[in-house]
Amino acid sequence: MHHGESVSTPTPIHARSGLFIVFEGGDGAGKSTQAALLASRLERADRHVLRTREPGGTVVGEKLRGLILDHGNGTVDARTEALMFAASRAAHVEQVLLPALNEGTDVICDRYIDSSVAYQGVGRGLGTDKVLALNTWATSGLVPDLTVLLDIDPVAGRARRLRDNATEDRLESEPDEFHASIRAAFRALADASPERYLVLNALDDSVALEKQIYARVKKLLETHPGHAANQHPNGSA
Amino acid sequence: MHHGESVSTPTPIHARSGLFIVFEGGDGAGKSTQAALLASRLERADRHVLRTREPGGTVVGEKLRGLILDHGNGTVDARTEALMFAASRAAHVEQVLLPALNEGTDVICDRYIDSSVAYQGVGRGLGTDKVLALNTWATSGLVPDLTVLLDIDPVAGRARRLRDNATEDRLESEPDEFHASIRAAFRALADASPERYLVLNALDDSVALEKQIYARVKKLLETHPGHAANQHPNGSA
Repeated sequence: MHHGESVSTPTPIHARSGLFIVFEGGDGAGKSTQAALLASRLERADRHVLRTREPGGTVVGEKLRGLILDHGNGTVDARTEALMFAASRAAHVEQVLLPALNEGTDVICDRYIDSSVAYQGVGRGLGTDKVLALNTWATSGLVPDLTVLLDIDPVAGRARRLRDNATEDRLESEPDEFHASIRAAFRALADASPERYLVLNALDDSVALEKQIYARVKKLLETHPGHAANQHPNGSA
Repeated sequence: MHHGESVSTPTPIHARSGLFIVFEGGDGAGKSTQAALLASRLERADRHVLRTREPGGTVVGEKLRGLILDHGNGTVDARTEALMFAASRAAHVEQVLLPALNEGTDVICDRYIDSSVAYQGVGRGLGTDKVLALNTWATSGLVPDLTVLLDIDPVAGRARRLRDNATEDRLESEPDEFHASIRAAFRALADASPERYLVLNALDDSVALEKQIYARVKKLLETHPGHAANQHPNGSA
């Protein structure tokens, strides 16, 4: 239903019964830990949940993920990088996110458009407006209901990342200044639309973080009835 | 020099001493044959010539070529397809085309932006304006000095293609109606900017085609002095 629509008329958020939640933040911020904790909470509340990540999530998207993140694919200039992320995202939205949200499944996604705006728009210097416009087109205007930004100092993030993983991918291995500009870009995005963001200190205790995240998510469940809505639609049996 | 420029101020065509010539047309139109004949003519006129093709031409671009054209990469929706072509093209312009043109090498390229406008903008229904804007950004506004359109009826094109090659790639294997819309799109692009196009009947004799192409290219050589310009720049030794 969505893929034929123009960007200028995206489906209103509340027309979808599933909730779309994105985790953003620098590498090492604990996004996947908190995504897993939130998924578990939602499942205990009888919601259908899909956890996914970008880049990736489809056959072509996972191949693009390798091209984007692995070392050894020759020179990858900024525009090429931004376009490959957008290509992977377009497939993800079309094949995974929209079908799930429309059938009432809550989607928890590790990284989305904000990562491109921060990494390619600011970090690579392509400009936030250009990268946002590119991705708005690529995603047919699909915007998260809530973005949880796990804010972290890049030096602390790198230390946590290296504790867990001996190697860094092509973007992780950029210098601290690059990651500092990414952090500032994420915070600017959140400041511009506070109603769609929850900004937390990634170094806080993970149980405390989980509680704050779920408190905010819980408020959104009413307007996104989830899977049950399809079994008992209004006005029919 | 070019990659930092905004799209709104592309380098004027004549600032580059190399000539940028693109061959467009449906599959089976004879683009690579005519590209080879033209390259040979230019070399006999003491020009430095680079022949290249899209998608591809760089390490990352060739990997994208496989993702785009091969069967077996799962569903590839229209926007993903358009974005992968643009990603490959961005790398090609940045790493290959601009460096060659700036040092005075003539570049002959098999397919460029018009193919995306025709195949994804019209054939896949994404809209010519959107696809053109995407690619203008991806290429920093690099426009060919001349595009040779080898116009061919898609049924004749398919017959010629199958005579040479037993298998068809993911785009070639689309039905005749798809290829008829591509043909119309190419012709519309040429009609809109006749000063930058040479439209020829691909079924004409290849020697006759070669003569017409070189007659048009020859006129452009004066304003694009080529490699010699770098050895004897105006006003210095």
